[in-house]
Amino acid sequence: MEHEDFCLDFQVRDYECDMQGVVNNAVYQNYLEHTRHEYLKSLGLDFAELTRQGLHLMVIRAELDYRRSLRSGDRFRVGLRMERLSPLRVVIYQRIVLVGDEAPVLEAKIIAAAISEKGRPKMPAPIAAIVKEKG
Amino acid sequence: MEHEDFCLDFQVRDYECDMQGVVNNAVYQNYLEHTRHEYLKSLGLDFAELTRQGLHLMVIRAELDYRRSLRSGDRFRVGLRMERLSPLRVVIYQRIVLVGDEAPVLEAKIIAAAISEKGRPKMPAPIAAIVKEKG
Amino acid sequence: MEHEDFCLDFQVRDYECDMQGVVNNAVYQNYLEHTRHEYLKSLGLDFAELTRQGLHLMVIRAELDYRRSLRSGDRFRVGLRMERLSPLRVVIYQRIVLVGDEAPVLEAKIIAAAISEKGRPKMPAPIAAIVKEKG
Amino acid sequence: MEHEDFCLDFQVRDYECDMQGVVNNAVYQNYLEHTRHEYLKSLGLDFAELTRQGLHLMVIRAELDYRRSLRSGDRFRVGLRMERLSPLRVVIYQRIVLVGDEAPVLEAKIIAAAISEKGRPKMPAPIAAIVKEKG
Repeated sequence: MEHEDFCLDFQVRDYECDMQGVVNNAVYQNYLEHTRHEYLKSLGLDFAELTRQGLHLMVIRAELDYRRSLRSGDRFRVGLRMERLSPLRVVIYQRIVLVGDEAPVLEAKIIAAAISEKGRPKMPAPIAAIVKEKG
Repeated sequence: MEHEDFCLDFQVRDYECDMQGVVNNAVYQNYLEHTRHEYLKSLGLDFAELTRQGLHLMVIRAELDYRRSLRSGDRFRVGLRMERLSPLRVVIYQRIVLVGDEAPVLEAKIIAAAISEKGRPKMPAPIAAIVKEKG
Repeated sequence: MEHEDFCLDFQVRDYECDMQGVVNNAVYQNYLEHTRHEYLKSLGLDFAELTRQGLHLMVIRAELDYRRSLRSGDRFRVGLRMERLSPLRVVIYQRIVLVGDEAPVLEAKIIAAAISEKGRPKMPAPIAAIVKEKG
Repeated sequence: MEHEDFCLDFQVRDYECDMQGVVNNAVYQNYLEHTRHEYLKSLGLDFAELTRQGLHLMVIRAELDYRRSLRSGDRFRVGLRMERLSPLRVVIYQRIVLVGDEAPVLEAKIIAAAISEKGRPKMPAPIAAIVKEKG
């Protein structure tokens, strides 16, 4: 993935592995979400604070390509690039690689929207500014 | 989803909900996986037993469309239909609806393969038979 | 456990098992919590609704004796008995057994309190009434 | 906790928080387990490798005192001290504190045993050596 906007390093924890001895499919979405929330923080946006204010950032579509399995103790990096999809939607490309190995473990395309407490679409200003600038 | 091969009923448990008060995105993959494994059992295939025998059923791609949120206590049904994608891959269409309400909560398309202990593709016979019959 | 106030049946889901092929230690607390919340519902108390109202039911101590392991597909029952510990605290005894087998899988003693939005202890009336009656 | 044998730093991830906006009770056991497994690694013992060899380290009792709640983004440290309980059992004292704040978030006492594939108790040599030395 060229021109990543953000990346975060992790290490597999044993409780994330299932009886196959590899990280369970669902857990990758935890890694992806945590990376997105840390990226928001780097933009000055706090997910918990937004939630308390009644602004709900929602994933509306996820495409996940599982290329290789992560195993106990693996160190990996989750990269992220965000782009404008429409006035009210962004797309976040995410990729997981082992640290020191560029072959992808997982590639994802996440489409997200933001909804106010009244159920109306509303994109937070810092996100709108970033994706506008890009494209 | 017409002609479902299998369906399973669930109820949201509170620990599955996140600070937004709705089921966390990753948890839907748990629901989908459990339904697939129960479907396997209905075909006479036990995921844990296959794993012990060294046959690994792997999700290689997941597409998830989140339509509505599940909340504390919601009763819902996960439906499933499996089709042949190639000699060594199947596609499983899955849909979540609230019990008594046909509007979809989530629609998913899961592509899966089976890999032997030696890393070779190998589709279990009951699955091969079912998807072959369907065409 | 004699004189159970409530019980709930479950089945192990494969994603709850870890690389040892058994249910991970932490997951038992999910089972115990879900059973307590269903018990609250049977008393007319909804955990999610109480939370929205600013009343937080909190576990302040948990003692868990792991006797046997649950495995893929196991059907089990979680029983519960609640007693008064002090004016502001209750103790909930919980026991997990396999369906059709009285040998305990897990025995737990959970101490819980309720705290208002202002951080003051406050026991919901239906719980206070039940534990008072018992003595 | 005086004389810790090991400690590990974490940060709360949003998916670990429940509808109360705090880390769910069960998740603390994930933190405790991960810290114990990293401690094992520091002793030259790998949990996943031990499991593959048929040696199962099992928690047989957990006592958890929840003192304060962890919230979104909190940075915390999990400390650990291991002692001999009997020839075949160890006790692990664990404590969670916020980074830069000594007031405990959680205090735990975990009793663990090790069981061979044949179901016989068997303590790994490095653990036996450490707890023996301590007295």
